[in-house]
This record gives sequence, C-alpha cells and structure tokens, in this order.
Amino acid sequence: MRKIDVRKIEMSGPDDTRVLKALIDEGAVDPKTIIAVLGKTEGNGCVNDFTRGLATLAFKRLIAAETGWSEDEVSRKVAFVMSGGTEGVLAPHALVFCSIEAEGEPSAEKTLAASSGFTRDFLPEEQGTMAVVEECRRVTLELMEKAGIADPADVHFVQIKCPLLTSERILDAQERGCEVVVHDTYESMGYNRGASALGVALALGEIPEGSVSDEVICSDWSLYSKVASTSAGVELLNCEIILMGNSTAFDSDFAIGHSVMKDAIDIEAVIEAIENAGMKVDGLPTTEQKARIVNALAKAEADSTGYVRARRNTMHTDSDINHTRHARAAVGGVISAAVGDPMVYVSGGAEHQGPDGGGPVAVIVRR
Amino acid sequence: MRKIDVRKIEMSGPDDTRVLKALIDEGAVDPKTIIAVLGKTEGNGCVNDFTRGLATLAFKRLIAAETGWSEDEVSRKVAFVMSGGTEGVLAPHALVFCSIEAEGEPSAEKTLAASSGFTRDFLPEEQGTMAVVEECRRVTLELMEKAGIADPADVHFVQIKCPLLTSERILDAQERGCEVVVHDTYESMGYNRGASALGVALALGEIPEGSVSDEVICSDWSLYSKVASTSAGVELLNCEIILMGNSTAFDSDFAIGHSVMKDAIDIEAVIEAIENAGMKVDGLPTTEQKARIVNALAKAEADSTGYVRARRNTMHTDSDINHTRHARAAVGGVISAAVGDPMVYVSGGAEHQGPDGGGPVAVIVRR
Amino acid sequence: MRKIDVRKIEMSGPDDTRVLKALIDEGAVDPKTIIAVLGKTEGNGCVNDFTRGLATLAFKRLIAAETGWSEDEVSRKVAFVMSGGTEGVLAPHALVFCSIEAEGEPSAEKTLAASSGFTRDFLPEEQGTMAVVEECRRVTLELMEKAGIADPADVHFVQIKCPLLTSERILDAQERGCEVVVHDTYESMGYNRGASALGVALALGEIPEGSVSDEVICSDWSLYSKVASTSAGVELLNCEIILMGNSTAFDSDFAIGHSVMKDAIDIEAVIEAIENAGMKVDGLPTTEQKARIVNALAKAEADSTGYVRARRNTMHTDSDINHTRHARAAVGGVISAAVGDPMVYVSGGAEHQGPDGGGPVAVIVRR
Amino acid sequence: MRKIDVRKIEMSGPDDTRVLKALIDEGAVDPKTIIAVLGKTEGNGCVNDFTRGLATLAFKRLIAAETGWSEDEVSRKVAFVMSGGTEGVLAPHALVFCSIEAEGEPSAEKTLAASSGFTRDFLPEEQGTMAVVEECRRVTLELMEKAGIADPADVHFVQIKCPLLTSERILDAQERGCEVVVHDTYESMGYNRGASALGVALALGEIPEGSVSDEVICSDWSLYSKVASTSAGVELLNCEIILMGNSTAFDSDFAIGHSVMKDAIDIEAVIEAIENAGMKVDGLPTTEQKARIVNALAKAEADSTGYVRARRNTMHTDSDINHTRHARAAVGGVISAAVGDPMVYVSGGAEHQGPDGGGPVAVIVRR
Repeated sequence: MRKIDVRKIEMSGPDDTRVLKALIDEGAVDPKTIIAVLGKTEGNGCVNDFTRGLATLAFKRLIAAETGWSEDEVSRKVAFVMSGGTEGVLAPHALVFCSIEAEGEPSAEKTLAASSGFTRDFLPEEQGTMAVVEECRRVTLELMEKAGIADPADVHFVQIKCPLLTSERILDAQERGCEVVVHDTYESMGYNRGASALGVALALGEIPEGSVSDEVICSDWSLYSKVASTSAGVELLNCEIILMGNSTAFDSDFAIGHSVMKDAIDIEAVIEAIENAGMKVDGLPTTEQKARIVNALAKAEADSTGYVRARRNTMHTDSDINHTRHARAAVGGVISAAVGDPMVYVSGGAEHQGPDGGGPVAVIVRR
Repeated sequence: MRKIDVRKIEMSGPDDTRVLKALIDEGAVDPKTIIAVLGKTEGNGCVNDFTRGLATLAFKRLIAAETGWSEDEVSRKVAFVMSGGTEGVLAPHALVFCSIEAEGEPSAEKTLAASSGFTRDFLPEEQGTMAVVEECRRVTLELMEKAGIADPADVHFVQIKCPLLTSERILDAQERGCEVVVHDTYESMGYNRGASALGVALALGEIPEGSVSDEVICSDWSLYSKVASTSAGVELLNCEIILMGNSTAFDSDFAIGHSVMKDAIDIEAVIEAIENAGMKVDGLPTTEQKARIVNALAKAEADSTGYVRARRNTMHTDSDINHTRHARAAVGGVISAAVGDPMVYVSGGAEHQGPDGGGPVAVIVRR
Repeated sequence: MRKIDVRKIEMSGPDDTRVLKALIDEGAVDPKTIIAVLGKTEGNGCVNDFTRGLATLAFKRLIAAETGWSEDEVSRKVAFVMSGGTEGVLAPHALVFCSIEAEGEPSAEKTLAASSGFTRDFLPEEQGTMAVVEECRRVTLELMEKAGIADPADVHFVQIKCPLLTSERILDAQERGCEVVVHDTYESMGYNRGASALGVALALGEIPEGSVSDEVICSDWSLYSKVASTSAGVELLNCEIILMGNSTAFDSDFAIGHSVMKDAIDIEAVIEAIENAGMKVDGLPTTEQKARIVNALAKAEADSTGYVRARRNTMHTDSDINHTRHARAAVGGVISAAVGDPMVYVSGGAEHQGPDGGGPVAVIVRR
Repeated sequence: MRKIDVRKIEMSGPDDTRVLKALIDEGAVDPKTIIAVLGKTEGNGCVNDFTRGLATLAFKRLIAAETGWSEDEVSRKVAFVMSGGTEGVLAPHALVFCSIEAEGEPSAEKTLAASSGFTRDFLPEEQGTMAVVEECRRVTLELMEKAGIADPADVHFVQIKCPLLTSERILDAQERGCEVVVHDTYESMGYNRGASALGVALALGEIPEGSVSDEVICSDWSLYSKVASTSAGVELLNCEIILMGNSTAFDSDFAIGHSVMKDAIDIEAVIEAIENAGMKVDGLPTTEQKARIVNALAKAEADSTGYVRARRNTMHTDSDINHTRHARAAVGGVISAAVGDPMVYVSGGAEHQGPDGGGPVAVIVRR
C-alpha cells in the first residue's frame, strides 16, 4: 500500500529551496521518496526565461545533497517540471510529490495517485512529430499502470515537460540531411507542446485511434486533451511526465478532480473541478473549504480570435507584453479568486490542451 | 422628471467613435443630452499613454460635429474621463451617460442618477494639496444636489479625472517662488489621485471633518473613500467629476450598487456590489442575470506589501511590466469572471480609494 | 526657380505642434508651402502604437487651421509620414519640408530637391503585391520629374508610408471571394514595406526590370533598394511618398547624401553619407561641421541571424522588448554619436531596404 | 614577475561555460590562476534579473570542478562580477582574468596589472553608508599594492560588485533596533553603488579627504570617480572588487587606458580611452587596430534631466522599458561602433561614477 504526499512550498526566488530543506531537516519529507517537483517560477515564461533552469538546478542540487545521489541519478529518478511566469497575483512556488510506503489495507475509496516517468531522447527532426506523440502515449499508459489506474476517467492531470529546437539542434539535423518541423525556435515550443498533448489524448482515448498524424499537429484544433498540460524547455531532450489521478491502490490524504475552462473567465469550470475532486460547493467555496484546497493547476492562453465572449481584447496586439503573460495574469486572477489563494499553478501555451482560448483545470483537495 | 441612459460601446481603437455615431444617426442617442464619457483605452495606463488624449479628442470632435457646438463648448458641458490600460481580457470601451427629460411622475423607487461637473483650474503648487481636496469636496456636494441625492449612502461611485505635474508646470511654480508637492511627475499623479479621493471622502462623511491636511495625503492610508475612483491625466488642469448613485428624482431603467474589494481576488465583494444594486445572487450570477449587468467599475492596485492573502507576488519586483498593469490584468480577470463579461472598467492606482491592495467596485444593472 | 526649406522641430509629445505654430506665427514658415511632414513619435513603433495617428491628426488640424483648407484638402496636398519609436537617446521630432518659390537664376550646383505624392488606394487583396510595387514605381518616377531629377543617382532617400491589413480589411476581401497575401496583420506590415521598397528599387534601376514578382516579395532578400525607407500604418489605404535628392532645378540652402549601413554598428557608412552630401570629414565631424548637419535619416533592423559581426545578440530572443525597439535604440546611438545630435530619424523594419541587418542612411546638411 | 592574461569568452546562455572549459581542457587556461570573472549576462539588469546568479553559480561550479576546490574556497579566491543587460547589439560574454607566474625581468614599460579582493560583510544598516565607503577605500588601496601600482593615475578601472537590501535584511535591522538607509530595495542598489564608487574616489585621491559623509551619498553628484564601475546584486553581503591598471610589476601582453564619457553619445571619449591605452587613432580605429582591442568597459545611464545635448529623450517617461535598458542599448551601440565589436561590457546605473548621464569608459588593448 502506498500514499502520495503533496507539499506546496513557497519560493522567495527561483533558487530558493529553503522550505523543502527545512521539511527534510525536520523529518517531514524523506528526500528519497520524492518523485516529482512541479514549479511555477518568476521569469517571463517565454524564450529568455532562465528561472526555469535555475530552479531545476537548485532543487536537483538539494535533493542530491540530501540523498547522497549524484545529480545525474536525481535526474533519472525525479521529474522536474518548471513553468515560468507568475503574472498578476500568482505566487512563485513548487509542488513536491512524494510516493510513500504506507501501512494498512487498500481503501474502497479512490485517493490521489501520482507517478512520473520519462520518454527516450528525441532527435531534432523528431521533435514536434509523431515520434513525440507515440512516446508520450506509451509513457502515459505506463504511468497509469504505475499509478494503479485502469480507467482513463480516473486520470485528472498529465503534466509534461518537453524539449524545443535550438539553432544548434536544427543545424545538427541539417548536417545529417534531415529536416525539422519548423525553423523558428519559438514556434518549435508549440509543436512539441501540441504533440505531447496529443500523445496523452490518444493514451486516454480522448480522440480516436488513427486521428493523429504529423499534419494535424498544431493545425487541427478540434483534437485536444482535457487533462494534458505541457510546457517546453531548453534544458531537456526527452519528455518528463507527471501523471495525477485517483486510485484505490493509494491511500492518500488527497484527491484530485478536473474540468475544462471554455475560455479565460470560465470560473464555473473551476468550481466544477473542485466538485469533481469530491468537494460539494454552493456557489463559491466557503472559508473552511478553501483551506482544504491544496492547489489548482491550469493552462491559460489568449484566444486566437482576439475575443473573449465576443469582446475584443488586446492580448495579441500589445507589442509590449507577450500574450501568454496577459493570459496567465487574467486566468491567474480568476482561479485565485475561485479557490481563495493566489498560490496556484497557471501555465501558458495550450496547444491541443482544451479548446481555443480555454484549457484544462485540475484541483487537488485534502480529503 | 429626468432619466439617465447609459450606453456601453465597443471601441476598435482609441479614436473609434463609430458606434456612438451610429447610435446618434439612428436617433437612439441625442448628442445634446450627453453629460459624460467614461472610457477604458488600450494604452499602458502609465506616463507615456497617449491613447487617453486621443480618445478624448475623438469623442470631443464627434460630439462637436453632431451638436454644432465648438470643441471648447463641448469641453465645458461634457466630462471626459479616459483611463488607460486594458490588460488581460479587458475590452476597450466607452460608457456614455445621457441625462434625458422624461415624462411621468416621480417613482417611489430609487433609480440610477448621474451628474457631472468641474472644479476650477489648479496652479501647479496647488496640485496634490488641500486645494484639490477642498474643490473636489465642494463639487461632489454640488453634484449630489444636481443628481437629487440627499443621503451620502445613495452615492455609489464618484469618478474623477485630475491633473498631474509636468516639468513645465513645476518650472512655472518655481519661477513664481512657489514650491510643488513633489518633483517627480509620475508621483504627482498619485498625490492628485489621493487628494481628489479624500475630497470625496469628506463630502460624503466617510472620514471625520478636519481629518485631512496636506501632511496626510499619500501618507495616512487609514483614510479612504469607498466610492471614489480617480485617474490623473496630462490633458487637464482642473478635475472633471462624474457622480453616480440612486435617486427618486430619476426614473431610469438602471440602478447602481457598490462594495469594497479587500484585496485583488475578493470576488465576494463583486457579488456584494451586484446585490447592492438590487439583484439577489445565489453564488454566482445566472446567465439571465449576467445579461442584465451593464458594467462593473473598479479600482485595482498591487498591494504595497507585495503579498496577497499572505502569498508573495512579483508585481512590484517585475522590472519588465509595471505593477499597475499586473494589477489591472488580475483584477480584470476576477471581475470579468464574476459578471460574465470582459468589457468592464478596471482602473489602476487607488491611493485613498479603498484599503491597501483593494478598492471600490460598483455595478450598474438594468432593472 | 524653387527652393526646399527644411525645419526640424522638437515635439514635447505626439500632439505637440507648438514649434511649427510659432514658426508660422512669426512668418518663418508659410503653411501653404508645406509639402511633407516626416515625424519620429514616441510610441513603441509596433502594432499598438497610436502616437503616429495622433501626431498626424495634430499636424493636419494645425495646417488646416492656418491655411483655411479642410482637413481633407490638407490630406491631399501634404504627405504625413510618422514613424514610431524613439528608443535610447532618440529625440521625438518632426521634419517639415516646404517648397518655396524663390527668385534668381538656376545655379550650377545641385541642391536639395524634394517632392511628395500619393499612389491610388489599394484593395486589401492588392496589399503587399505587385499592385503596390507598380504604383510605387510609377509615383517615384513622377516625383523625380516633379523634383527636377533626371539621374537616379541624384535620388538619396525615398520615404514611403504604406498601409497594412486589418481584420476588417481581410474580411472585406474574403467576402468578395478574394485572397490576401497574409492573414497575420503584423506580418502584412512587412509585405507592404517590402513591396513599396521594391517599387522604388525598380524606378531607380537598382534592380533589373522584371526581377520582381509576388513570389519574391519578403522572400528574396538579395533584391533591395539603397535609398528606400518605408513604414506601414493603419491610418491609410494608399502610399504617401516623399522623395529627396539633389537637383539644379532647386536653389536650396541644403544638400543631401546617402550610403548604406552594412550592419547596425556601421558608423563608417554614416560618415560616408555625410561626405556624400558634400561635407568632407576627417575621422569624425568637427563641432562646426556637426552644427551644419540638419538631420540623418536611417532604417534599422535586427539582423535575422541574431548576430552582428559574428557576435550573438539577444534582440530576437528577448520576449520582453520587441527586436525593432532594440535595433532602433542601438542604431540611434551610433548615428547620434556620428552626427553629434540625438534628434535623428531612425525607423525600424527594413524589408528590401538595404542588406539583412543593415539599411539606408541619408544625411541632410546645410551648405 | 607576473603577467595578467585576459580571455574574452562568448556565452550562448547565462550558464554556458563551455568556452572556458575548452580553454582549460586544451591547457590554455590554468583554472588555479583565475582571479576574476567579469560577465555581461542577458537578463534585464534590474531587480528580477536572475541570470547574474545563474552565471555566477555556473562559473563557480566549473572552477570548483576543475581545481578540486570546494565552491566556498572558489568564492574566497575568485571575484565574480556579473552585470545584467545586453540590450541592442551587446553580446553576452565573460572576461576571465588570470594572474600567472611569468619568467623574465621586469620590463620598463607598464603593462596590464589586475588584482581582486573582498571587503568584509556589511550589516543591513551599514549598506549605502560610510561603512561601505571606508571598506571600499581600504580594499582599493590594498589592491593597488597587490597590483604593484603606486601612482593612482595608473589605475584605469575599478569594478565592484556590492550588495543590496532585501525585505528580510531590512526586517533584520529593524528587529535589532537599527535603521537602514532606504526602505525601497531597488533604491538601495543605487546607494550601495554610489557608496562603493565614492570609496574608490577617496582611495585614488579623485575627491578631497573628508568630502564624503552619509549625507552626500546619492545626493551631491559633483563628487564622483572617473574609474569606478559598480553593480549591485542580491547574491552577496560584501563587496567584490577587481582593480585594473598598468604597472611595471607585470609583463602582460595587454595594456589598459580610460576616459570619461560626458554623455551617452560621447564617442570621442571612447577614442580617447583607446589612445590612453597606448594606441594612436586617426579618427576611427582601423580594421587592424580594432582586432587588437580586447574589450571596452563602460557605465551607462539615462541623464536625470531627460535630455542629451539639449534634446529630449523618453528614457525616463517610457513606462514599458526601464531607463537603464534604454541607456545600455544606446551606449552599447556607440561603443560597439567605435571599437568595431558588439562584445563589449556596458553596465547601467552610474551613481557617483562620472558625471550625470555619462560615465567611465576603459579599453584593454593587446600590445
């Protein structure tokens, strides 16, 4: 019997791991049980955001020091997914998942289950293609098994960190006579996010077998997952995946639920996600209920039409602030208001993750 | 007997007055009845935001052309208050107030009342001082009378456009041997916004007689108005004031209510404002109720502590995006979600307007 | 016999026309002789820069008021080219060109000649295509004749303001069953800038007859003009063109020369342009020589490779500041240092205007 | 006999130390001889710039791995000064100084000398006060001796990394009943930069003994050093100092010279600095001369008046881009153009470092 422990820790900067260190020092967290660290760091969340790499390095060094493992060993055992951008009220933080051996018998009730894993490395010419789709599909299915989840309906959030193309990687492909999916390195982020999400959608049967090919990636927006959340980063060549759901194989103090925001201000979907996690809400959560909400995890993006509820916004025409930053700020406000806490995980760029302008939202509650 | 008509019109750019033109052309709006235009324009809302001036110029020219009045006449008859910044989902728009002669008897029910007026021009050395406080107090009281409001509790929103100091104006004061309140032109915006708001607070009896002096302006934050909303702009030397409330002297199709957001994610206060306007809400407004909400008007600001609900945010430490832009984006998301419409009026910089990090919120509903 | 007078006037804001007003009041400028106003305004120079429209409106209103012409008449007689973006040391200003009847005999020496004109309006589906190329070619040739310039080598700067696509214009084309060159409105700026520049290149014989087709626009960068400088703006549907050169048909107090900057720090090219205008320079201009330089006009852009002189820069990877703003700031520094004056005209986005990462630079000197 | 070796290495990102690693691997650099690493990293150079810390961590880790020293030992032996901000054409890079035992006799000619050292840690209440001034003065004098420089005129650049106040540090002072110099953490950067620079000015006799007190720091701008260049960072509590000059005690292949830029476009001062380093220049450096210029090091800032050469700029009124970023972009363009290389070190914020709007500029040339 196992249980998943979740710790939401504040960060005073991208390299601040003091809270996790204190939890380890006081025995509250056994560093060898950590399977994943999911972070929201305070960079711009775009191309030149180095806070993601700095946070990954800081947590990796801490866990290596506390476990005695090498940094490479830590990299093979723990999934690090850092998402940049804490616009508006959003609070920089990390969510640490521990998988702990627990005593007792399996309970009848499904509780929070989580597992993490890795795809193989991708060649530059494979990025953003079916190669990524297939590997993410394969690992998602593995992680379901690892988390003791048989029914795809019990999977509520699949967080993936995927690679991106750089000038060097593109050159490498070209020197071997291969062509990459796109030459713009910024756009390659979207292709990899989209391909990863479609892999999840196939694994969970959200879209029909055979519906995905290289051509539909970042092109046919009718295909999407309602639980995938993917982020690209320069610091890796494979995908790191964290799967979350509910299972009777775990006896955790937590449960998770999800819904899909139809657009950036769909607060009703956030309430649905809370209820889907097993907490009945009357209008908005009460103070007591808010205290039991551990975190909300969501994707945000500017609707490609430039409109929300038929009202024009300026997210796409503002040449001073990137539209992903506008979107995170607004959606961060909406979700923070719903759960009564600005320390929530809102990530930008939702290709094939929910409908245009919307995205998946999951909520973890203390049972 | 009079009634107030309110028209919320979309703007495809700061100088787009086509919707108002069409309403005038089709006879829905009589240009001579317009008493105020309150706009949300798509600049950065900070020092170098010229969309406010452009929008003012555009609406002034249209009204002059349609009424046959000179632009100067229009300036003396209509209050133009343009607030810059439509971050996140916020939609650029203008709210046009018309005061119309109506037939019939006074109704027993209080309905939307509005009036607009102007203080005298201020010398540079008077800006941000008791001179502004006193004038705003005086005109607020006049506007209450003009709107047929006797009880300060029936005043729900007082929007003021105030001046700011420029290098030229400071020099002018110095050449006459006078000292200005602050030499930083950006900071002078805050002093004028604060002084204007305190004038409203005195007029409405929100703070004790004699509690305001030059020293407390932008210093003693315990003094504030719960209904004042003030914006500074370079384009004027006096204050333009729009007062909104409910009165039996008007037989309008609308009513207004307000509340105070304690912080940036206080969605409960937005619901309170809706209810205060006479619409009973169960949790969140229904689709039918949302259709009857004309607009929400609110002030947003980054809490000076850098924290919301004890969670650190990066609004004050982000050197790429001004904190007022972060605040409008987040609060804009919250209010849009509550009323189901991103075309709401959220303005930044709330000195002496509600508590630190919070601010007044008013809602106009169709009865 | 005619002469061209050039007035460089400072602007304290995008709508500040006080200096020109004063020059008219004191009789130094006859408003009816103005043929063009070329401005550098303080917006971001990108999509949501409304300072260009505001400045155009302000100057148009002033000239209408001072001449007694209607604003429409002014539009047909005077070319207004406003370019946004005054990053770094660049000073907002306008350059006013007057074409004046002068007494005396034609001089043997070539002096500053200038003329302005307009293409026909373009349908949305014509934007960024050969239709623009051909019209700009035609008008450029007309303007040469109007300026008394027979030899293309005597043309030193051709400034064009061209239109761009908006969502409305794209829709209009589609409703008539026509296709536009690109659906991204931002990218349409580049296509129109490029097409306009190629029209100039054809008119002046800089590239071979028949070398331009729809396919090469914004695609074959080996084709470019060394004297074209083009800017796109939402406020017009045709192209406004100002041509500058030297001619014996004018007896001006000024002369113009040009060169091509090979990259962003090619200060040697700026010196060459000064010398090309007839001022012999030893190293850098002396204080006396600097006083005789009226203005420098140049195009700036970030090299598409991300490198200048084989050194990596971050103009293309900085997600907080648009690369055109980086480029104007840097090139503005270089040119200001060369001529000893930060009030110079540096405009961004140089498709088919000089080589990748470089661009034309012209200098007007007092003889 | 010793010699200073200087290596300018490109960085493809803030944590890219590959070039230094390669130099060590091929035996070109002995890691134990490194005394200082001076870097220009690609963050925004303001409060939330984490690229400085990331680069420091990366170089520290590399040197620790290559020398076998602990990271703490490296910290005590090597000065790391990272300055953020590579706007415009500026290229991210690091300058590595090695102090090497050399054979042979002292030469008659003065060549590049360099030394590095550290002040004691400062209490929060000491930051930005005479405590910093005195310690920087003391260590500067020590470093002169260490570099074999007796005459202050032979000191050409003193680079200091100083601390800044954080909310935690201010709280710590207050809990001990002490007051800090300023509560705004951003402003504390300026006080520390200013105090450090005044310490250098006193050490070198640039300002009279007794002229500095707490009151004049960041207040009396007539007091400044012509060779100090100071940067604040959150990652340290003391000052790290790198002193550069010329001395007969060293037999280096390099020499250094300096001058003071009077304003942001004072390219003549850059030429003077090159000549001061011993390279006679006719106008602008030739291609051969440019190849011998190793690096230029300069401070840039926006003139507090908002004017350069009596021309208004918008660096202080642009609410989208911090004025320090504007200044680095412009000055970076000027200096890159003068030396023909965009890989130069231009740092922002020049309190008490050269006159208002200007700053020191030093040039290192290969003899």
